[in-house]
Amino acid sequence: MWMPDRRSSQPLYQQIADDIERRIAYGEFPPGSLLPSERKLAAQLGVNRSTVILAYAELRALGIIESRSGSGTRVSKYKWGATPKHTPNWHRYVEGGSFLPNVAFLRRIREALQQDSTLIDFASGELGADLSPVEEINALIDENHYTGYLGYDNPQGFLPLREALVSFLSQYRGIQTTESSILITSGSQQSLYLITQCLLAPGDAVAIEDPSYCYSLPMFQSAGLRLFRLPVDQHGIRPEDVRALYKKHRIKMVFLNPNYQNPTGAVLDAERRAELLHVTSELGLPIVEDDPFSLTVYDGNPPRPLKSMDSLGSVLYIGSFSKIAASGLRVGWMVAPHSVVDRLADARQQMDFGLSVVPQKVAAQFLKSAYTRPHLDRLRMNLLYKRDVAIEALQRELPGLVSFPVPQGGLHLWCKILPEVNDGKLLEEAIRNGVIFAPGSVYGSDSGYVRFTYARPKAEEIAPGIAAFAASLRAVLG
Amino acid sequence: MWMPDRRSSQPLYQQIADDIERRIAYGEFPPGSLLPSERKLAAQLGVNRSTVILAYAELRALGIIESRSGSGTRVSKYKWGATPKHTPNWHRYVEGGSFLPNVAFLRRIREALQQDSTLIDFASGELGADLSPVEEINALIDENHYTGYLGYDNPQGFLPLREALVSFLSQYRGIQTTESSILITSGSQQSLYLITQCLLAPGDAVAIEDPSYCYSLPMFQSAGLRLFRLPVDQHGIRPEDVRALYKKHRIKMVFLNPNYQNPTGAVLDAERRAELLHVTSELGLPIVEDDPFSLTVYDGNPPRPLKSMDSLGSVLYIGSFSKIAASGLRVGWMVAPHSVVDRLADARQQMDFGLSVVPQKVAAQFLKSAYTRPHLDRLRMNLLYKRDVAIEALQRELPGLVSFPVPQGGLHLWCKILPEVNDGKLLEEAIRNGVIFAPGSVYGSDSGYVRFTYARPKAEEIAPGIAAFAASLRAVLG
Repeated sequence: MWMPDRRSSQPLYQQIADDIERRIAYGEFPPGSLLPSERKLAAQLGVNRSTVILAYAELRALGIIESRSGSGTRVSKYKWGATPKHTPNWHRYVEGGSFLPNVAFLRRIREALQQDSTLIDFASGELGADLSPVEEINALIDENHYTGYLGYDNPQGFLPLREALVSFLSQYRGIQTTESSILITSGSQQSLYLITQCLLAPGDAVAIEDPSYCYSLPMFQSAGLRLFRLPVDQHGIRPEDVRALYKKHRIKMVFLNPNYQNPTGAVLDAERRAELLHVTSELGLPIVEDDPFSLTVYDGNPPRPLKSMDSLGSVLYIGSFSKIAASGLRVGWMVAPHSVVDRLADARQQMDFGLSVVPQKVAAQFLKSAYTRPHLDRLRMNLLYKRDVAIEALQRELPGLVSFPVPQGGLHLWCKILPEVNDGKLLEEAIRNGVIFAPGSVYGSDSGYVRFTYARPKAEEIAPGIAAFAASLRAVLG
Repeated sequence: MWMPDRRSSQPLYQQIADDIERRIAYGEFPPGSLLPSERKLAAQLGVNRSTVILAYAELRALGIIESRSGSGTRVSKYKWGATPKHTPNWHRYVEGGSFLPNVAFLRRIREALQQDSTLIDFASGELGADLSPVEEINALIDENHYTGYLGYDNPQGFLPLREALVSFLSQYRGIQTTESSILITSGSQQSLYLITQCLLAPGDAVAIEDPSYCYSLPMFQSAGLRLFRLPVDQHGIRPEDVRALYKKHRIKMVFLNPNYQNPTGAVLDAERRAELLHVTSELGLPIVEDDPFSLTVYDGNPPRPLKSMDSLGSVLYIGSFSKIAASGLRVGWMVAPHSVVDRLADARQQMDFGLSVVPQKVAAQFLKSAYTRPHLDRLRMNLLYKRDVAIEALQRELPGLVSFPVPQGGLHLWCKILPEVNDGKLLEEAIRNGVIFAPGSVYGSDSGYVRFTYARPKAEEIAPGIAAFAASLRAVLG
C-alpha cells in the first residue's frame, strides 16, 4: 500500500497529488469516477484532512479532477483527449448486479479496521494470533515437502484431507462417514453459499435462527430466498416452531448452529435435538447443521452433533478450521449425501475451479499430526481465560447497564445493553475511542445488542477495550 | 478412496457389499436414493461388472437395496425403521437450484479421467507436471517461513502478492497499475464468475467470441445472460461486429481472449485491437480481457494487451498462474477500476471469505524470485516442442483427414476433422482406446472440431495418443 514518505523533501500534499494522478492515469479511477472523500483518504494515508484538501486543489488546478458541492470529487472527463470519450458507466454496472453487497455495518467495520490497525477488535469473528497454531503449522510446513504436481485437483477436494477428516470426525465429533461423502470448501461460508445457490431456488422459504449470523450474509437475499425466523432461547430453537413454519410457509430447509450459537452462545438442548430430528424426519425436511465452535467447548465435552444421530441422511453437516485453528487457511468441509456432494462439487468447479492444494495439504498434515489434541486443549483454556477477563471487565465497567448469558463455548459474548441506545452512534463513538464491536442488528436482532468476540483481541487488550467501550456507551447515553 | 483388497481371503463381492452397506448406514446414500450403476461402480473399483452384480444381489437379499428394471438400484425405504420415515427428496433439491450443472461432455470427461488414470489426457486445459515449476516452488517453500498470523486477509487479496504483481505486470505485460487496482482471485474462473454475478443482471446481453471456452461455462447461462457471438477468424474477432451487436442488442459487455485464444489459438490483429478500442470507447462499452496464455508465446514476444492501451479504464484485465505455472495454486488476478475491485472483493467475501494466504505467499515469492524468467523460457521451449510433436503425429496419422492452424502460443491445437463425424461417438471410442480430448462443441462450435491440449500429456505420450485418436476416428468413420 502506497504511503507518503514523511522524510522526503517533497511536501506531503504534493506526494499525494502525484500518487492520485498516477492512479488516475493507470485507470484505477476512470474519467468521471468518484475519488475517495477527503476525510476517508486522510484516514487511509494517516495525514490531516487539510493535506488532502491541498492535494485535491493541486489536481483541480491542473484540470485533472473536478469538485461539485454535494457530489464529491470526480476525475475530469475532458482531461484525457481533445474530445470527450466515453468511459463505461461503472457506477451503473457496480449497482446493477444481482448479487447484493454486504450489510452497511460490516462494510463500515472492515473499513475502520483497515484504516486503523490499533483498534481493539471485538468485531472480527475469529481467533486472535495468540490462539492459532502458527508454530505448529510452520513446523509441519518445514517438515514436509510439496513434491506433488500442482494441477487441478479432484472437485470434491484433496483426497488425503478427506481421509484425515473421516478419522477426525469420528474421533472428535462421533460422526461416521466416508471420504466420498465429504466436500472440502473455502470455510463454512462457501458451504452455505453453495447450498443457497444450488439446492434452493428463488422464492423458496427457509427457516433461520433468530438472531443468527445468517442475517449478516446477504447471500440468502441474493439467492431470492424467503427467510422465516426460529427464535433462540437459552436452550436453542423450539422444534414445534419448525413444524409451524413448515405448515404455514412450506419451508424447504432449516439452517441451524446448534452448538454455542453465533451470536447468542446458546446450545440446543438434548431433548430438543431428539424432538427436532423427529419433526424434520416426519416432514422430510433437510437440516443444515453448522458446527464450527463445538471443539472450543470449555469443559471439553461438546454435545453430540445432529449429524451423528442422523440415520436418514437428512442433515448437511458443515465444519471448518476457521474457528478452531486458522481462518486464513480457508479450509472447511461439508458431510452430505452423495448426490448433494456431487452437485455442489460440480457447481464449485464453475465458480472457482476448486481450492488450492497447498493449504489442504497443510490441513491434512495438521489433522494427522500429534499437534491436534494439545492445540485444542490449549485453545479451550485460553478462550475460557479470555471469556472471564471480558466478563469481569463488563461487570466492573458497566454494572447494571448490561446483561448477558455466560457462554460455555465459542468465541463470542452476546450482550444486551439495558438502556436504549442507537447502534450506529455507539459504533462510531467506540471507533473514535479505539475499540470496535459488531452491533446486534447485524444478526437480525433488535437494536441494543452487542456481539463481543473476546477470542480476537490479545488477553491484555480485553479490559482496556471494554473500558473504552464503556466510555463510549456513557458518552452516547449522555 | 476405498478399494477392494485383492489379497484378502474375503471375496471381492462381499467386500464391496460391506462397503456399500457402510456408506448407506453413514447417510451417503439415504433411503430411496439411487446407487451407482453396476457398470459405473465396476469401473470405479476396477472389478468386473459381474462382481458388482453379486454384491448388489447380496444387499438385495438383506433387504437393504431394491432394483426395479428401468429405474436402477435404490436404497430401500423400509430397511431403517419399522415405519417408513421421510428422507428429504434430495433428487428434487439437487435438480431445483438456480445454478446450472456443467455441460455433459465435461462431466463425462471428468468421470473418465477419475476412473482411468492411464488415459492420455489431451482434454484437461492445463500444463502437465513436467512444465510446472514444481522444484522451484518446493525450494521457495523450504526457504521461507510462514511465521505470519493466518487470520482473515484483506478482501482484495494478500498485499505482498498484489505488490509483486504490480512489477510483474509492468515488466512482462506493459501494464501500469497499482496494488489498490488489483483483486486476487481463485484463477481466472473466479474473476469471470464475479463479473457475471455482480456487474451484470439477468436479461443483460453480452458478446462472446465464437468459438470460445466461455461456452463451456454454464455460469453465463446461470446468470441469465443473453449471449451473442463474435466469430473468430485467423486474426481474431472483427470490431465492426461489436458495433453491430451493440446496435441490435445493446450488449453491455464484451468478453475476449485476444492472445492465443482458447480454443482456436487465434491472435487479435494489431490493427483490429486499435479499432476495437476505438469502437468500445465510442460506445462506452467495457471489455473483459482474459489473458492467461500470453507468456507462453513461442517466439518470446507476446502482443501488447488491450489493457496496456486502455487510458479510459474500459478494460477489466484478467490473468492467472494456472496456464503459466501451476493451476493447483489457484491464484489469478484482475486489474480493474477501483469501484469494480471494491464491489467484487465485497461479493467474494460473502461467497468464500477470500483465498487462503498460503498459496498467495508462495505465488508472491515466486514472482519476486529469480526463477520467473528461466521458468518462462523453459516453458516456451517445451510447449513449442510438444506442439511440434503433436503436429507431426497428426500429419503422419491422419493425412488429408484433419486441418488446423499452427498455434504460436498457448496450450491447445484446434483441429477440424474433415469427414463428417459424431462428437459423442468419437469421444467414447477414444476413451476405449486410452486417449481423451475435448470435443469442439463444448466451445460452441459445430460438430467435427477437436481441441487437443498438447501441454498436458508427457511429450512421449503425444505420438501414441494421437495414434490412438486416429484409430478411434477411423473406427467411428467405419
